[in-house]
Amino acid sequence: MSDAALLDTVPRIQQCILLARAPDGVPVADDFRVESAPVPAMHNGELLLRTIDLSLDPYLRSVIAGRHMGHAAPGIGGAMPGRATAQVVASADAAFSPGEYVLAETGWRQYATVPAGAVQRLDTAVAPLSAALGILGMPGLTAWAGVTQLLSLREGDTFVVSAALGPVGSTAGQLARLRGCRVIGIAGSDEKCALAMQHFGFDACVNYHEPSWEQRLRDAAPSGVHAYFDNTGGPILEGVLRTLRAGGAIVLCGLIGQYNTGVPYALPLAPVIGKRAHLHGLVVYDFEHRRDEFVAEVAPLLRSGTLRLLEDRSVGLASAPAAFHRLMSGHNVGKSIVAVSDA
Amino acid sequence: MSDAALLDTVPRIQQCILLARAPDGVPVADDFRVESAPVPAMHNGELLLRTIDLSLDPYLRSVIAGRHMGHAAPGIGGAMPGRATAQVVASADAAFSPGEYVLAETGWRQYATVPAGAVQRLDTAVAPLSAALGILGMPGLTAWAGVTQLLSLREGDTFVVSAALGPVGSTAGQLARLRGCRVIGIAGSDEKCALAMQHFGFDACVNYHEPSWEQRLRDAAPSGVHAYFDNTGGPILEGVLRTLRAGGAIVLCGLIGQYNTGVPYALPLAPVIGKRAHLHGLVVYDFEHRRDEFVAEVAPLLRSGTLRLLEDRSVGLASAPAAFHRLMSGHNVGKSIVAVSDA
Repeated sequence: MSDAALLDTVPRIQQCILLARAPDGVPVADDFRVESAPVPAMHNGELLLRTIDLSLDPYLRSVIAGRHMGHAAPGIGGAMPGRATAQVVASADAAFSPGEYVLAETGWRQYATVPAGAVQRLDTAVAPLSAALGILGMPGLTAWAGVTQLLSLREGDTFVVSAALGPVGSTAGQLARLRGCRVIGIAGSDEKCALAMQHFGFDACVNYHEPSWEQRLRDAAPSGVHAYFDNTGGPILEGVLRTLRAGGAIVLCGLIGQYNTGVPYALPLAPVIGKRAHLHGLVVYDFEHRRDEFVAEVAPLLRSGTLRLLEDRSVGLASAPAAFHRLMSGHNVGKSIVAVSDA
Repeated sequence: MSDAALLDTVPRIQQCILLARAPDGVPVADDFRVESAPVPAMHNGELLLRTIDLSLDPYLRSVIAGRHMGHAAPGIGGAMPGRATAQVVASADAAFSPGEYVLAETGWRQYATVPAGAVQRLDTAVAPLSAALGILGMPGLTAWAGVTQLLSLREGDTFVVSAALGPVGSTAGQLARLRGCRVIGIAGSDEKCALAMQHFGFDACVNYHEPSWEQRLRDAAPSGVHAYFDNTGGPILEGVLRTLRAGGAIVLCGLIGQYNTGVPYALPLAPVIGKRAHLHGLVVYDFEHRRDEFVAEVAPLLRSGTLRLLEDRSVGLASAPAAFHRLMSGHNVGKSIVAVSDA
């Protein structure tokens, strides 16, 4: 399609999604409102983008509540923030041409103007576009940083990861498995556990809704857990800590329960001392400067089929609120994506 | 004194101290009872010991409550456990001769029989006997393990330690200072803070009873804290965490508040993640096999006066209950020792 033809596809009015009210706990669809709004005018140095796949991530729950570092809350009536893959439909910056694909902070909308300096160019030869939202994006970098930079895994180690089907957990588990670890997932349903083993090749997976999940974890890790990648906090973290080997390591990456409730989660420390545990707080933004190294390792493994991804796709921007509810209540299966338009 | 003469000094009846009732929170003197009891008979392979200096340590509070790993609770009416320096007054083991000095689990009593295999010979040429209870003993090994094995301190780092006047804190601070760190203590009174600086050479010390203690810590550590050796847990740990540099390290060593109350202390995790902190649980028993290396480093520094110690001595076995109350309420100044008899 020619540059002009691309621009001709842009309507004057688009859909976007606003925060209608402050969510109470797990966000529900009625906390959001779909509105029509003009496609904004593009200024010098900006790009006009058409959203393709919108990424839904747990951190957005904290952003809404004004609790996420470096992100302003949208406020009631404000536009929902969010990252997406997008196509450049018009460019007012010499570095970008119409037709190129980028990763950008579009928010929950069909069209967005963004500064050209704030987007990241995507190469469809490297991987499917949507991988940039999951295994090759922030979640993948998070998993890579924890597994390769904060932990010192050895062949034969038992590695446990919670939220095992999510893009962070599934990537972390696969990377640990490539390093020769025995990998055990923790997930919220038997279906997810089956997928962790069949789709991602985990050695075992425990459904934490089973009352006996801790015993099952001990059965799956008879010599104890060497390393745990925690995406949840709460009773799951405390349970895995009880199965940790003395001197074992834990990456502290997410507190999904706390994102919903806002009630600060606190970890009893006596068991941490008793286990001589090593705990490492992980913030993915620290590893942005390692992104090239990360992509160089992971992209070829993804292309060769050694690493796999799993997406929970809902279709149409208007499906975002319900999909976000599913994500924040743990009912998504795989990386949560809203397919806003076709590539 | 000849071997027989030493034995002649042993009375038939001795004083010992029992647990009279379960302490409620901070132990008070009335929780204990001084009793007269026969000096026990020595069996084959045992030593009869005369207690010299009895060590009072916070872990005894957990032992009383039955919460300390590897230690049986004495129970109501049971004899109080405890370590002491002692002299062998009679030996039924070929490896020990009367007159020798040892470190042993005597309990709170004037005379004890113990298996010869359970004591550690002490050499008065290496250091003053009582150093084996503090800087050259378990507290010193604890400090050495945290500073040299769990942390990676660099010259110019800002190092903070709580319970700064105690044998763990004062040794940790001195060892960090020898490694070129700027050392800030946290202690419970202005008097203790003055001693931390004047006696132990700390660069600064903050009295945590001051409402503005956190601000004072920030003032004393304008570039933030690189490493923190925590002996307390609770609000002190949470306060220092707020002043920790991103990526800083914390040794988790003690939970003194919890020892008294038995209420498990829990640390809010979001700030740990936000600070990208590295937390390391420390249990001194893991480092027993490094004792020779530790003594080889610390004993010469103690003899040369480079490292110093500070003792809070009370005189006579009967003073132990009141001294233990002082220790567990934070009113001791330096290593808490009950001088039971002269060397």
